Amino acid sequence: MTPKEIHLNLFAFGAGHHAAAWRAVEGSVEKLGLISWWEELARTAERGKLDAVFLADGQAINPVGLENGPGWFLEPVTALTAMARATNNIGLISTISSTFWQPFHAARMIASLDHISGGRAGINVVTSMTDAEARNHGMDALPGHDVRYARAAEFIETITALWDSWPAESLVMDRAGKFADSSLIKSIDHDGEFFQVAGPLNIPSPPQGRPVLFQAGSSPQGREIAAKYAEAIYSVAWDLEQAQDYRSDIHARATAQGREPMPVLPGLVTFVGTTVEEARAKQQALNALLPVKDSLNQLSFFVGQDCSTWDLDAPPPPLPPLEEFSGPKGRYETVLRIIESKSPTVRELLGYLAAGGGHATFIGTPESIADEIERWIDEGGADGFNLMPPMLPHSLDDFVDLVVPELQRRGRFRTEYSHTTLRGHLFNQVAYSARSLV
Amino acid sequence: MTPKEIHLNLFAFGAGHHAAAWRAVEGSVEKLGLISWWEELARTAERGKLDAVFLADGQAINPVGLENGPGWFLEPVTALTAMARATNNIGLISTISSTFWQPFHAARMIASLDHISGGRAGINVVTSMTDAEARNHGMDALPGHDVRYARAAEFIETITALWDSWPAESLVMDRAGKFADSSLIKSIDHDGEFFQVAGPLNIPSPPQGRPVLFQAGSSPQGREIAAKYAEAIYSVAWDLEQAQDYRSDIHARATAQGREPMPVLPGLVTFVGTTVEEARAKQQALNALLPVKDSLNQLSFFVGQDCSTWDLDAPPPPLPPLEEFSGPKGRYETVLRIIESKSPTVRELLGYLAAGGGHATFIGTPESIADEIERWIDEGGADGFNLMPPMLPHSLDDFVDLVVPELQRRGRFRTEYSHTTLRGHLFNQVAYSARSLV
Repeated sequence: MTPKEIHLNLFAFGAGHHAAAWRAVEGSVEKLGLISWWEELARTAERGKLDAVFLADGQAINPVGLENGPGWFLEPVTALTAMARATNNIGLISTISSTFWQPFHAARMIASLDHISGGRAGINVVTSMTDAEARNHGMDALPGHDVRYARAAEFIETITALWDSWPAESLVMDRAGKFADSSLIKSIDHDGEFFQVAGPLNIPSPPQGRPVLFQAGSSPQGREIAAKYAEAIYSVAWDLEQAQDYRSDIHARATAQGREPMPVLPGLVTFVGTTVEEARAKQQALNALLPVKDSLNQLSFFVGQDCSTWDLDAPPPPLPPLEEFSGPKGRYETVLRIIESKSPTVRELLGYLAAGGGHATFIGTPESIADEIERWIDEGGADGFNLMPPMLPHSLDDFVDLVVPELQRRGRFRTEYSHTTLRGHLFNQVAYSARSLV
Repeated sequence: MTPKEIHLNLFAFGAGHHAAAWRAVEGSVEKLGLISWWEELARTAERGKLDAVFLADGQAINPVGLENGPGWFLEPVTALTAMARATNNIGLISTISSTFWQPFHAARMIASLDHISGGRAGINVVTSMTDAEARNHGMDALPGHDVRYARAAEFIETITALWDSWPAESLVMDRAGKFADSSLIKSIDHDGEFFQVAGPLNIPSPPQGRPVLFQAGSSPQGREIAAKYAEAIYSVAWDLEQAQDYRSDIHARATAQGREPMPVLPGLVTFVGTTVEEARAKQQALNALLPVKDSLNQLSFFVGQDCSTWDLDAPPPPLPPLEEFSGPKGRYETVLRIIESKSPTVRELLGYLAAGGGHATFIGTPESIADEIERWIDEGGADGFNLMPPMLPHSLDDFVDLVVPELQRRGRFRTEYSHTTLRGHLFNQVAYSARSLV
């Protein structure tokens, strides 16, 4: 039996996902506003034959404050457009907030990116999470969770209908007098709870027909929407067990919706060294730069108690079991799992939480990391990973130059692109059609 | 006295501005969805040392129907982002509808374009004009004229405040622990009639500080807003007298607002030949491709009577004077002026109206066209032109290869760029500051 193909995205973020990456002497914080920096990251990812570059987004400056590190910079659709022209094959996935974007604008921008990239666009539809973002878009505060998810579902249905509304097949371009066959171009007449959109979209359907629809969702409503609509999922899992639980749950929900299971890509932080010690040293060097006070504040929030007096170089004190914790359980469970699995000092715990707040973190040699990647794939925890290099470009270079070749040697990752579209990389299909997804 | 410097933009549109351009055998209609086509146009404009590429926009498919020619295609901000990376010096101006965009999104996209282009972005703020567009954005019909212009003014004030809210000077990037000096980053707390935006913008101020603000406005309210806010103006004028009237009116309005007069760039359609006959032949070849029935329908609308029985190869019948006409007067006046100045046949009249509906149209040799350009500049009708090539790339190539060198020989147009920002090309300044504009 052929081993399952692995999918890998580069989730590019700031100077790297580790909260202290921008403080490293060898870091790249001065380049964050330069498009050439982002293009170079995309080229590196393409050199590694990765499926896509994935960009997050936020609609307000970093809520932890710009004193402590870079907030948002280049807008992702424009940045990915430039990255599209600096590359030839790699996919380009932009996060779009369904809470604050109008579907006509969003469908159009992403379709335009798909045209410009020759069929490499993806959209990661999210619901936004902060009042600060809401206040930039005419609201006093964020709508409630249920409202946001209802709006997200309607947003997805609307952009999808818009992408289908002006089929490229209508473009007959007959110079005798018929540019398009208007009988194939349809209004969508969407009249919903959140959006009224007549359509059609004012851009013909792009090379992929529909750009690839990513989502992330951990709440029950988020999982339902992901199961119903997502073609691929970006997830959060600290360990294989969490990953398996999430993936099997989301696949069960998809099956219940009459859909085939879709690829699930947990976020993955890697520190790669020629020896385990070298890899650990890279992690420790970043952890040593963490602003301790702020990190302890964040931890205090996660665990619902004051951590400011905890000894940084000792293990954390015993914490109450999950069922006794009354705050948000997701992050608390991750903290418990990190302590259980790694027996870290408090400083090490802060370090594990510093890159995305508790994503899978593999530290070791190319071989040991490839082993772990294979294990997650083969034991049903993942269909691939959304790579979250803790420090850019260094951690990305390490992955591309050391781990990718090891996966290729094992026959687990492509050595050349066999497609020129993101749909091709993910689903072995050029353009959208009803299909089995995994 | 040094002759006044001339500013020239390429207003790139479809297969060319002439309504029949897409039907020409040698036309480029098949390339409209290819970003390489748009990049090539931008490179040609840069070869001609033009100030900027200017893109229009619409929020619905071409209302005359996609049977009759291309409607909208690539979204302008993404297209200009790609064009930015294909060029080094030329400005990039995107039209943005203040009627349908939220200011936070718009300010951010254009600031991102300014970062990506190294300071070459401009925004042409317009009010939208059709119910079809409104129905794509949650409205049953277009808001009234006054509401649209009030919203446009508030839109401009909001995006401007957002561009100023996170000054790049705040980015100290001190690795010891201070990424930005947050005392320099301000919320805008805009709470207006149409928009509530707290700010700050989530992207630092771009190279130009503020991207250059273009506008177009012919109604009294449009002129007031342009006089109050615009840094440069795209106008419509059939002949020098109309151009002078508009420019002197807008400059008087600017002065009344305590502002310096700003550059006014009328749209300009050119047919260039080595002889006048060759130039006329190019025009006639396009006119011969016009879909007569649709063009007569449009003319019927402009003149308020049925033109379908008019003899195409005879002069139009006498029309009532302007003061007796009860419909929209702007376009009707243009029709009268075309008839008075050119004594055209009906078919020729349709041709003059076919590129933008009555913009200045210069037909002749490089020398005669350069003469006319100089005359408009020197007699106060214009500070430059928004070039509207009737057929792309041919009419643009003709202008760049034949007219630009003639203007350069006469010392009226730059032979090299002396700046790398749009603000530099237009105002001899790198970044925004209070200044005299012309």
